[in-house]
Amino acid sequence: MDLKGLEERLGHRFKQPALLQQALTHRSFSAVHNERLEFLGDSVLNLAVAHLLYDKYAKIDEGDLSRLRANLVKQQALFEIAQTISVSQYLNLGEGELKSGGFRRPSILADTMEALFGAIFLDAGFDAAAKVVRKLYEAVLAQIDPKTLGKDAKTLLQEYLQGRKIALPTYNVIATHGAAHNQEFEVECLVPKLDVRVVGMGGSRRAAEQGAAKLALEAVVALAPAAAKRARKTTRRDTQLSLPVATVQTPQADLLTPAEPAVGKTA
Amino acid sequence: MDLKGLEERLGHRFKQPALLQQALTHRSFSAVHNERLEFLGDSVLNLAVAHLLYDKYAKIDEGDLSRLRANLVKQQALFEIAQTISVSQYLNLGEGELKSGGFRRPSILADTMEALFGAIFLDAGFDAAAKVVRKLYEAVLAQIDPKTLGKDAKTLLQEYLQGRKIALPTYNVIATHGAAHNQEFEVECLVPKLDVRVVGMGGSRRAAEQGAAKLALEAVVALAPAAAKRARKTTRRDTQLSLPVATVQTPQADLLTPAEPAVGKTA
Repeated sequence: MDLKGLEERLGHRFKQPALLQQALTHRSFSAVHNERLEFLGDSVLNLAVAHLLYDKYAKIDEGDLSRLRANLVKQQALFEIAQTISVSQYLNLGEGELKSGGFRRPSILADTMEALFGAIFLDAGFDAAAKVVRKLYEAVLAQIDPKTLGKDAKTLLQEYLQGRKIALPTYNVIATHGAAHNQEFEVECLVPKLDVRVVGMGGSRRAAEQGAAKLALEAVVALAPAAAKRARKTTRRDTQLSLPVATVQTPQADLLTPAEPAVGKTA
Repeated sequence: MDLKGLEERLGHRFKQPALLQQALTHRSFSAVHNERLEFLGDSVLNLAVAHLLYDKYAKIDEGDLSRLRANLVKQQALFEIAQTISVSQYLNLGEGELKSGGFRRPSILADTMEALFGAIFLDAGFDAAAKVVRKLYEAVLAQIDPKTLGKDAKTLLQEYLQGRKIALPTYNVIATHGAAHNQEFEVECLVPKLDVRVVGMGGSRRAAEQGAAKLALEAVVALAPAAAKRARKTTRRDTQLSLPVATVQTPQADLLTPAEPAVGKTA
């Protein structure tokens, strides 16, 4: 297979093409596969991203730097980067993985990205690998909001309300459905000061609370037109909201029509 | 303070001495402290050790490489390295930390080591930092047994017995002492085929089981003189055994005199 296109998108021409081949080889395909390169590449990526964040955010403490890094190197982030450079078309996958669609599985693509970073590190050293990481993360880094990236919806809602001196939300389990091993929780989130009540659903109490918090955040942001645009954009990007915008109701309506609030489901 | 001695033991002369000073400065001493360098240095160390292991163990899979790395970069390992180069005498600590003996606290010394690796990385790049890591880890790396390092006593005992086709041990809680919030567990470990019965104690069932497994391992190794020397050495080093050697009893004696078996306590 012609790998020139991939090398161009990575911004690295391999001196040892065998390393590139190995990085693209899943264990289902060959005994010479990419898992050891992935082990190495995970560390390469961690250091490269740590350095980028260290330089970019001179005033951020190490706790926030760690949170940002964790979010930039996690599977979903790597999967998205793998898609931008079309890694899937170059994968060496075994018969079974091919049939079951392994070439689009996030874990396989994310692992392959790490293996590629490991391969570049072995091929040309850390600086070469860091250059590739910097190039691939350029667009992502330009967009992130260091204050919110990687925070969960409950934390974001709490910080949003605290910043406006509004009393914190309360969460109540209002129903559970299903058998013990497969329960579904319904949790309401109340922000009394703003007359917001929304209901989230999920396979655990925690998940249902997070679902409710996401909806509540949408609701309170919608109520604050001045700050709405900025905050909503931040929220959407960082928590990957794909939930319906919550309706906001008067407390009376809440009590009378419990089925009405927006319901978000979180896996 | 004259830092030449430290630079010599690190094997790195700083072009930017301010970075070295910052790496040695605890947050209790100054607003310009070492925590951001520690964040960076943690990644530097991870990659440097990953690369050393990748090169040294060409046949080990990434799961075992991860286990080895985790053990080499953990606080205790860094603390021991900090002691070999006498980092404590160079620390910049605040009044309170000085009085409470912060200069010998493992967490402070381990964090400082990471900060030093971060500082060297910024001062002269990854290869310079990796060279320092390689030098400091040389003695440690020469000694490790990749099959056992970082495995707990129960795992080691199980693998030892499996390797000799001996039936696996059983663990039973035989007594608990103390109030609910401060309980002490007594757990026996039985290897019936070898007539081994030992008792471990600990603040949790898990800790007591590990204590018992350590003693049982000592006992079964003592029973196998041929392989004893090698395995015992491995065991001592890797699980830091400081327990009395377990006595080995006949099953009858076990039942009649439950107070007799060797008792090991694990925190």
